[in-house]
Amino acid sequence: MITEICKKAKAASVEMAKLSADAKNTALCRMANALEANAEKILAANKVDVETAKAKGLKSALLDRLALDQKKIQSMAKDMREVSTLADPIGTIISTWTRPNGLIISQVRVPLGVVGVIYESRPNVTSDSAGICIKSGNAVILRGGSDALNSNVAIGKVLRDALEETAVPVDAVQVLNSPDRKVAEELIRMREFIDVLIPRGGADLIKTVVETSRIPVIETGTGNCHIYVEEDADLEKATSIVINAKCQRPGTCNAAEKLLVHSRIAKKYLPTVIAALRKEGVEVRGDEETRRIVSDVKLAREKDWYTEYLDLIIGVKVVKNLDEAIAHINKYGTKHSDSILTADFDKAMKFIKEIDSAAVYWNASTRFTDGNQFGLGAEIGISTQKLHARGPMSVQHLTTTKYVILGSGQIRK
Amino acid sequence: MITEICKKAKAASVEMAKLSADAKNTALCRMANALEANAEKILAANKVDVETAKAKGLKSALLDRLALDQKKIQSMAKDMREVSTLADPIGTIISTWTRPNGLIISQVRVPLGVVGVIYESRPNVTSDSAGICIKSGNAVILRGGSDALNSNVAIGKVLRDALEETAVPVDAVQVLNSPDRKVAEELIRMREFIDVLIPRGGADLIKTVVETSRIPVIETGTGNCHIYVEEDADLEKATSIVINAKCQRPGTCNAAEKLLVHSRIAKKYLPTVIAALRKEGVEVRGDEETRRIVSDVKLAREKDWYTEYLDLIIGVKVVKNLDEAIAHINKYGTKHSDSILTADFDKAMKFIKEIDSAAVYWNASTRFTDGNQFGLGAEIGISTQKLHARGPMSVQHLTTTKYVILGSGQIRK
Repeated sequence: MITEICKKAKAASVEMAKLSADAKNTALCRMANALEANAEKILAANKVDVETAKAKGLKSALLDRLALDQKKIQSMAKDMREVSTLADPIGTIISTWTRPNGLIISQVRVPLGVVGVIYESRPNVTSDSAGICIKSGNAVILRGGSDALNSNVAIGKVLRDALEETAVPVDAVQVLNSPDRKVAEELIRMREFIDVLIPRGGADLIKTVVETSRIPVIETGTGNCHIYVEEDADLEKATSIVINAKCQRPGTCNAAEKLLVHSRIAKKYLPTVIAALRKEGVEVRGDEETRRIVSDVKLAREKDWYTEYLDLIIGVKVVKNLDEAIAHINKYGTKHSDSILTADFDKAMKFIKEIDSAAVYWNASTRFTDGNQFGLGAEIGISTQKLHARGPMSVQHLTTTKYVILGSGQIRK
Repeated sequence: MITEICKKAKAASVEMAKLSADAKNTALCRMANALEANAEKILAANKVDVETAKAKGLKSALLDRLALDQKKIQSMAKDMREVSTLADPIGTIISTWTRPNGLIISQVRVPLGVVGVIYESRPNVTSDSAGICIKSGNAVILRGGSDALNSNVAIGKVLRDALEETAVPVDAVQVLNSPDRKVAEELIRMREFIDVLIPRGGADLIKTVVETSRIPVIETGTGNCHIYVEEDADLEKATSIVINAKCQRPGTCNAAEKLLVHSRIAKKYLPTVIAALRKEGVEVRGDEETRRIVSDVKLAREKDWYTEYLDLIIGVKVVKNLDEAIAHINKYGTKHSDSILTADFDKAMKFIKEIDSAAVYWNASTRFTDGNQFGLGAEIGISTQKLHARGPMSVQHLTTTKYVILGSGQIRK
């Protein structure tokens, strides 16, 4: 079964690579319209998923992610329309030059081919991923979590039906309709057909895919993000940044999970910032030094320093100096987003140079690591690996390049 | 043991990322000088390898690759100096922009970190890879074939001794000195320390690495390259291109392995081109149609169409038209380099658009797919995959990027 799906995707990808921007944009708008026109059908399917999940006793955070309503469907349609307005990366000539022997060499942007997306319980990922993949000229195979199966299949059917009337082949979007784990395991071995696999979800999902896939994977999302407050930071701004980075949306990967504070200002600053965090309902876990200053702070264990809480919890540590802060972040972080708050240019530059993360901030909240916030448009995830794409992955990161060489009979001497 | 080596490489990579272009270039020149100054030591070690290989009955093509002489060592030193003259990609600001909220976002080029290179019997790969990795600010762990162990260890020692007097940490270059397969197997699982693995060698080596590695791999090199002669091609130029692509250096990955000929000119052209190939000592294997036209051609089996001969052998097939040629190449090829010979713009554009390969040629020999021939400088391999880099991989392909975000207290609303 999977082989058939993969073959269809491959065939569709060949057609996709030939399409004009207009043809793809028309299809995206049709898909957006179809989502709105078929909202009732999608909500009915979603209701089945939500009720099953409730009966299984799923946590309320997960139920929130799973549940759709009219507003969320409108937002999916809006996002799809926004993708249609982005520049089409396909066919862009990145550079072109002539060699001494007269060969004209160009590097041209082309689609990847077939993209596999493996995700969890958020059904909007189905339409988001389909939109970004079509815009970038790829075919996509979508495999969502079993909790959202009915929702995903319903969204997939609406999108495919919409494609019937367009130049985009229907099989450019395929949703796996089996909740069987083995199907996913089979999918991630289809190297012959799938060009890249993108896991979107929690750390466990990503780890499993990375460790078992035979297809190149782009790791996304895990964010154990740090804010480091230097001794010369503007402490008022610092508190506003810390609160924003931790509390504005704690369940996102670019939320801060750890606060490091320079030892020289710890005594003065920790009581203030911890009080401010607690006022927002944040649980503070600190190292011994933090507990010497604010005695009722819970002790952070070694494991805490590695943890992405995705919740109103923060780990707080006093560091000797900038070097210790950098070493700590590079050791315990996930190479996602880290910020230094300082008035000192040299310290900021050292931090920027030595922190090995996708996004390094000076005097700003880590919450900006996001395709839209960066001004790149919709994203399919935030890459925390170094190959291919790093940071927010937008439409152009779902492409590759090809060298085109025009000659007039040249041979190599 | 491997863990220790990986830790040293990781530590060295942190220092490497901070180095100026001058510091790296000075080290490269010292390494080049050291190769020449220690040629006798290297040749003595190489002699041991060559004699052992001879005693084991290694094929002469492999012995050729393994054996060093003064000239080859001079060439290694020359290549190292050439790498020192290339532009340093590190620190390049790819783009920078200001967001409406005042955040200044820049995308900056940074080293990958630790590169693992797994290769076969050519000892010059040791110095080539070390040079390119240092230039791009990375630390490298080198694991060559057991046949070349003494040579590689000797070259590694010379390079590391040269680094002693420079700003580049000695552990930026480490050569594994164990011929044990298990050591290589352990190496390719060190995801925690190694950022990318590059196998350089034959199809079997690459397949093994791709299938067992836990580290992101860049596939290189396998080239089942095609030349397709359209009915309106300039047949005189065609023959010169076919002979060049097949015979100029048949053991390289960009050599042509297959010749496809449009059915309308097959009767006229095949006798000429096959005679020309045979004059150069090429064994021709053809499909049934080719054998109907030139009867003494050996029959090509299904397996032939998939095979990279790396030898004076060529597969010849008559195709109905351009569509069949494209379908054949995309099915049997290795996405390396393929060329169409035609006078017709539309046909060329169709071929260029639809052939899914790293390099697509119009009216030229496939032998140009090479970092130096493209004008990109020294290469560490030719990527035949789509992620990260495609085609000749030069110094800048051993880098990644980082977003640097400068703010003045911005928080997300």
